[in-house]
Amino acid sequence: MPDSVADEWTTEGCTVEAALDVVGDRATFLVVREVGCGVRRFADMQRRTGLPRDVLSRRLARMVDDDLLRRVPYKEPGARVRDEYRFTTKGFELYPVIVALWDWGTRWVAPTPGGGAPIEFSHRDCGELVHAHLRCEAGHDVTEPRDVLPRPGPTAVRLTAGA
Amino acid sequence: MPDSVADEWTTEGCTVEAALDVVGDRATFLVVREVGCGVRRFADMQRRTGLPRDVLSRRLARMVDDDLLRRVPYKEPGARVRDEYRFTTKGFELYPVIVALWDWGTRWVAPTPGGGAPIEFSHRDCGELVHAHLRCEAGHDVTEPRDVLPRPGPTAVRLTAGA
Repeated sequence: MPDSVADEWTTEGCTVEAALDVVGDRATFLVVREVGCGVRRFADMQRRTGLPRDVLSRRLARMVDDDLLRRVPYKEPGARVRDEYRFTTKGFELYPVIVALWDWGTRWVAPTPGGGAPIEFSHRDCGELVHAHLRCEAGHDVTEPRDVLPRPGPTAVRLTAGA
Repeated sequence: MPDSVADEWTTEGCTVEAALDVVGDRATFLVVREVGCGVRRFADMQRRTGLPRDVLSRRLARMVDDDLLRRVPYKEPGARVRDEYRFTTKGFELYPVIVALWDWGTRWVAPTPGGGAPIEFSHRDCGELVHAHLRCEAGHDVTEPRDVLPRPGPTAVRLTAGA
């Protein structure tokens, strides 16, 4: 095991942690799922996620501040102008995270093990199911988690003595 | 957009939500990162994550209950027997989720944009960086998030009228 990562380097500036600071709670991820499924309006999101109105409202505002979502006004006949929510590029690029969570959940914690999932992700061009895979920059598929080796990166901060 | 998924089907049994019920909080993910980096002992995890002792303790107990981690006793000279924590297969298979979060965090929310990350994931065989990619079962790389099409799966529950 890569003891050097653990023993000699701090976790300062970890980009997994930075990602979690932005998307690391259940409500945010449920909203990401909804927008990914084409659900863009407050009332629909509230019905489908079961989140309390104030929780969903605060969450959406923060996601707009964090540039995951953008507001797009719409108006239905006889109603006032409202906003719907769409992904920014930054939000769209969460898809690999969502699909990886879906792969894992479908395999390990599905209510009906082996029975598939109620929502699945397909390739628009061919209709086959989409999954998240690990691949290295040399083009090798990395199928064994043990072949993923954490190591200090360019901005790693060395642990100082006594820290 | 796939309005049918949103308008005609419930989110009941969603496996993204099921996954979030198990791993959907920041503390759990920080522990997953630590174990993935070879940090297996309580005191080391506490120092590196900054989590309060009782939070970390409860979190580890729950992760053992959820079969993400297993306890392995160890004994240092002169000390009592303690447990360290290692991944189960179920825990190991979170790697695609971690790497996808790391990719996203490094690209979008790194403290030093464009400067890389303090921890990175490399391929044990060749040393090149590992990333998460989407690919369909027909073998096509899916590089555009818009080409990932959510649809009702085998266990989808249709929305009943008035629901």
